[in-house]
Amino acid sequence: MTQAKTLNPIAATFKALKCKECGAEYELTASHVCEACFGPLEVTYDYNTLRRTVTRESIQSGPNSIWRYRSFLPVATENVIDVGTGMTPLVQANRLARRLGLKKLYIKNDAVNMPTLSFKDRVVSVALSRARELGFSTVSCASTGNLANSTAAIAAHAGLDCCVFIPADLEAGKVLGTLIYSPTVMAVQGNYDQVNRLCCEVANTYGWGFVNINLRPYYSEGSKTLGYEVAEQLGWQLPDHIVAPLASGSLFTKIYKGFQEFIQVGLVEDKSVRFSGAQAEGCSPIAQAYQEEREFVKPVKPNTIAKSIAIGNPADGIYALEIARKTDGSIASVTDAEIIEGIKLLAETEGIFTETAGGTTIAVLKKLVEAGKIDPDETTVAYITGNGLKTQEAVQGYVGEPLTIEAKLDSFERALERSRTLERLDWQQVLV
Amino acid sequence: MTQAKTLNPIAATFKALKCKECGAEYELTASHVCEACFGPLEVTYDYNTLRRTVTRESIQSGPNSIWRYRSFLPVATENVIDVGTGMTPLVQANRLARRLGLKKLYIKNDAVNMPTLSFKDRVVSVALSRARELGFSTVSCASTGNLANSTAAIAAHAGLDCCVFIPADLEAGKVLGTLIYSPTVMAVQGNYDQVNRLCCEVANTYGWGFVNINLRPYYSEGSKTLGYEVAEQLGWQLPDHIVAPLASGSLFTKIYKGFQEFIQVGLVEDKSVRFSGAQAEGCSPIAQAYQEEREFVKPVKPNTIAKSIAIGNPADGIYALEIARKTDGSIASVTDAEIIEGIKLLAETEGIFTETAGGTTIAVLKKLVEAGKIDPDETTVAYITGNGLKTQEAVQGYVGEPLTIEAKLDSFERALERSRTLERLDWQQVLV
Ligand SMILES: [Zn+2]
Ligand SMILES: [Zn+2]
Repeated sequence: MTQAKTLNPIAATFKALKCKECGAEYELTASHVCEACFGPLEVTYDYNTLRRTVTRESIQSGPNSIWRYRSFLPVATENVIDVGTGMTPLVQANRLARRLGLKKLYIKNDAVNMPTLSFKDRVVSVALSRARELGFSTVSCASTGNLANSTAAIAAHAGLDCCVFIPADLEAGKVLGTLIYSPTVMAVQGNYDQVNRLCCEVANTYGWGFVNINLRPYYSEGSKTLGYEVAEQLGWQLPDHIVAPLASGSLFTKIYKGFQEFIQVGLVEDKSVRFSGAQAEGCSPIAQAYQEEREFVKPVKPNTIAKSIAIGNPADGIYALEIARKTDGSIASVTDAEIIEGIKLLAETEGIFTETAGGTTIAVLKKLVEAGKIDPDETTVAYITGNGLKTQEAVQGYVGEPLTIEAKLDSFERALERSRTLERLDWQQVLV
Repeated sequence: MTQAKTLNPIAATFKALKCKECGAEYELTASHVCEACFGPLEVTYDYNTLRRTVTRESIQSGPNSIWRYRSFLPVATENVIDVGTGMTPLVQANRLARRLGLKKLYIKNDAVNMPTLSFKDRVVSVALSRARELGFSTVSCASTGNLANSTAAIAAHAGLDCCVFIPADLEAGKVLGTLIYSPTVMAVQGNYDQVNRLCCEVANTYGWGFVNINLRPYYSEGSKTLGYEVAEQLGWQLPDHIVAPLASGSLFTKIYKGFQEFIQVGLVEDKSVRFSGAQAEGCSPIAQAYQEEREFVKPVKPNTIAKSIAIGNPADGIYALEIARKTDGSIASVTDAEIIEGIKLLAETEGIFTETAGGTTIAVLKKLVEAGKIDPDETTVAYITGNGLKTQEAVQGYVGEPLTIEAKLDSFERALERSRTLERLDWQQVLV
């Protein structure tokens, strides 16, 4: 057990890496596994100092990005990478709420996060800021797509060398959305879990900073900002219920940590928030463990259109499970068809185009409401984590076609008449 | 000439529609053409009231969206449609600046504007807020793609019926990114100018609110926020030089109007800003008029990958021309190949993936610097107006391919060695 020291001269409030299992503490280096028990390491903070020094006002006077919560993030230097990441809208979703039978529903919309339109920009901004101060010149990641986009883009902005690893069968938009920034891209013939295993080997051999492997303790802290922002945007209050997608389970546990930290330092009142998780049926190891009331998560082989959350062997699965249980939340899974309906429902009612992960969240939200597991009176927040333009193939074929017309008024009028007739027929069928 | 009246009870600072040509004033209805001279109508404001009532502090305490500038926008009711549009990052682009030989370059990044990732979300938020208070229940537009995305999404959020018109040959991402919100989509066999003419006929026949036709005076005011935000984000100062894409020319003239208004009401110091415009060679009627020192813009038939700015008969072309000339700016055009290079250059240096219009802007920026038309010491702002995920086909084939490997360390190492050898060969060729 080593005494933690910050590596940098500036007073930082993060103090050590601590094993989530046995509590052993380590210095703030690039490592993620406990030497004693192989448990995952997590960053700890000096909450007494935070309680004394951070106020709602000090946060509000900070930048309009995740860096307004800088004291709660594991970066020591002033020189952070700020490309406007975070502070995405918390949209009051009245039309979707009415459709679902809820009274107060909000969408936390990371489909428009900066720069690459997913919540991964949060974790990568933190990881690369930390990577730079730890002296890495090459950064890397094992990715289901969004992380590759984000790592490549933010590395480009920061002038860091970058090599990303993706499964070879990724959506075209996610591949192009990585290549455009000119990193080295390795397309691995295998699923995400195989990509991840290969990257662990590479991380051990090369002196690279893998954001979600050796830098994982710093990286994952970035997701806490999804908790902080919702609390601040609700007027410094916590919601009653949140619904978020589960991939590795990290996002879920870090939103929870974010809420707990804000309670602990007195920025919000203490309150229990129910945590519900969403998985795709084709990759639902955590939902299965939840349904079967198991204490462990059994790895599965993913087979779903929701590739960005298709992690068959989720590193933080048991912690997510634990949180859902102790907060009286729920974990459910939905089919690929329901995911597509979820994407369309959110777009039609709220004008938000999300990717398959977001469709999963909306479909699970619907399912939980119908099952009576979300109370209509609860203030509920659904986390939308990525943008639909990256997974266009998932909905192509399910959104209809434009009406092709000539550039003439009568051609338009005939098409309009046709479409209205079709709509009437649709309605008649509904009424029959 | 009619005396202007506001239609709503709430005190509004916008006063009339005024003809840009003959100065005739009209009531604040849904109309866009002067009855006397067929000139375009523009919204006027009571700048004395604005000077007395608006301060930097009152703006800063407003919402984190375009609606912080509400007093300068033509909407009377409090009930505006705010989906987080605007307040996109002004990125200090140090790495791109170094590559181009500039000292202070900023990117105004509307590639991450909300909700649909282009500057059109600004104009549509204003137009639909106004449409609703004028009593329209169906909204529409003639679009090159981004406007269709934005109108469909924001109409969905607001619960308005929506019918959009696009050219039939639009990029797949822009078509899907419209259909997903379930509007009626008319794909017109013809180019944008033909679509636009058809829509003028429809606007005259149907009682629909066309955001860029009968609602155009309100709609176009939304672009002023691109001027306001840059001024505020530079610490309440104007830049020395801006570069923006030219499609209809409206954006360009409204950024100018935004700067002028801030000077007029005392929010920033008076200063002359040079305005330079960017067009694609395959549709460059304004650049041609500029080069040939003509007073009029000769319509062309568009043929370029930069479809979102391919307007052959630009409504505000002459006003854009006038501004470039009187501010000592410039207007230039670039080839499709240069546009692709522009997209890649911005992505590699700043981690921003823009569509073809943004590639045009960056390529023209480069061209103007090389021609000595932008001084290295000038504080320059380049406006990036849309996201690259919508025009993926434009760069596909120009960004390389991932290196396909097996999920094994030695397969990775061989691929890495190959890629490094290729890189060395590239460099040797450069050196030879
Ligand atoms: Zn341990
Ligand atoms: Zn007139």
